[in-house]
Amino acid sequence: MSEILTQLTEVLEARKQGSADESYVASLHQKGLNKILEKVGEECTETIIAAKDAERNDDNRQVIYETADLWFHSLVMLSHLGETADAVLDELQRRFGLSGLDEKASRNK
Amino acid sequence: MSEILTQLTEVLEARKQGSADESYVASLHQKGLNKILEKVGEECTETIIAAKDAERNDDNRQVIYETADLWFHSLVMLSHLGETADAVLDELQRRFGLSGLDEKASRNK
Amino acid sequence: MSEILTQLTEVLEARKQGSADESYVASLHQKGLNKILEKVGEECTETIIAAKDAERNDDNRQVIYETADLWFHSLVMLSHLGETADAVLDELQRRFGLSGLDEKASRNK
Amino acid sequence: MSEILTQLTEVLEARKQGSADESYVASLHQKGLNKILEKVGEECTETIIAAKDAERNDDNRQVIYETADLWFHSLVMLSHLGETADAVLDELQRRFGLSGLDEKASRNK
Repeated sequence: MSEILTQLTEVLEARKQGSADESYVASLHQKGLNKILEKVGEECTETIIAAKDAERNDDNRQVIYETADLWFHSLVMLSHLGETADAVLDELQRRFGLSGLDEKASRNK
Repeated sequence: MSEILTQLTEVLEARKQGSADESYVASLHQKGLNKILEKVGEECTETIIAAKDAERNDDNRQVIYETADLWFHSLVMLSHLGETADAVLDELQRRFGLSGLDEKASRNK
Repeated sequence: MSEILTQLTEVLEARKQGSADESYVASLHQKGLNKILEKVGEECTETIIAAKDAERNDDNRQVIYETADLWFHSLVMLSHLGETADAVLDELQRRFGLSGLDEKASRNK
Repeated sequence: MSEILTQLTEVLEARKQGSADESYVASLHQKGLNKILEKVGEECTETIIAAKDAERNDDNRQVIYETADLWFHSLVMLSHLGETADAVLDELQRRFGLSGLDEKASRNK
């Protein structure tokens, strides 16, 4: 299941090459980095607003949807800069490996 | 490798219970949703600035680092609302499954 | 010249009452606070991107334009919540009065 | 009262020259544009969160405070790029003059 980000990266790479008519992703790449970053910022704002509504309404559907949009557009950004999700996951693993294992170990005692 | 988000979710859940002295994550949960959302917004801004610098300097290290911060804090947000990364990955898979397979298939022809 | 924010506040109040067909401002109020806040966040991201481009290109036109958009939509937000620009200008004056006068005075020595 | 932005611009210019020890504004300029833009983004997020809380609690004090922070840091950004509040107010007046007068006139009938 968690292979999804790697699979999604492959799909995003494939779509990067397409014509703008063919896919939303290709049209973002053709509009350029500023347009992609505007979308990242927009989805982050929508995530924050949805989280405030989720706190009030006890319904997480919108915040899940907006977080998916935020991650999706940050993957398009990475792809535009020649990176993949793996670089970010490596960075998270490096941090997680450093400080995460001790706490996890102590939890299992 | 891409199991990292699921592992990270487990670590975040474990740390949620800790005292604020013990971990940064526990201190975020104790400060509450607004503080967590401030961090999400802050890391998003830093990601956008780093992407603009990466475009100019051809060096992606900072944007990878900031995207990791953005994803990390959005995972803390999901955890605070009682969700996990899986809900977001499911949503991405659902979208990917719907529109992604056709394009992937046509690419393999 | 700097009366513009007060004048603009009056215009925004007048438009608040209009039908959505009549004006962009009325349509924002009818869509509600979340839509207005999405625009505030969107314009903030565009301001940040424009500032990074201004730093590189030595051309401030876009960043002036986007900052105007940011201030405009934050005025619509204040209006939606029943406030005016004056409340924010009062707050700035309060801070400015407290710490600003000493420094200004010392500068004139 | 609405002269405040022009006065504030003058104070900000004076502080731009100071040592970082002397003032917060000088320290922002010394840290550079990225740090200033991080603050703009941070205050925008805090404004959005405060507006959501104001909607719920019917108390606008925090959103006024955060909007003042947002405007203040966008003035520091303009100053760092060699602009003043007047450029933004001119832009707002230009837009307001174009589309605002008709509606204002029709309102007075």
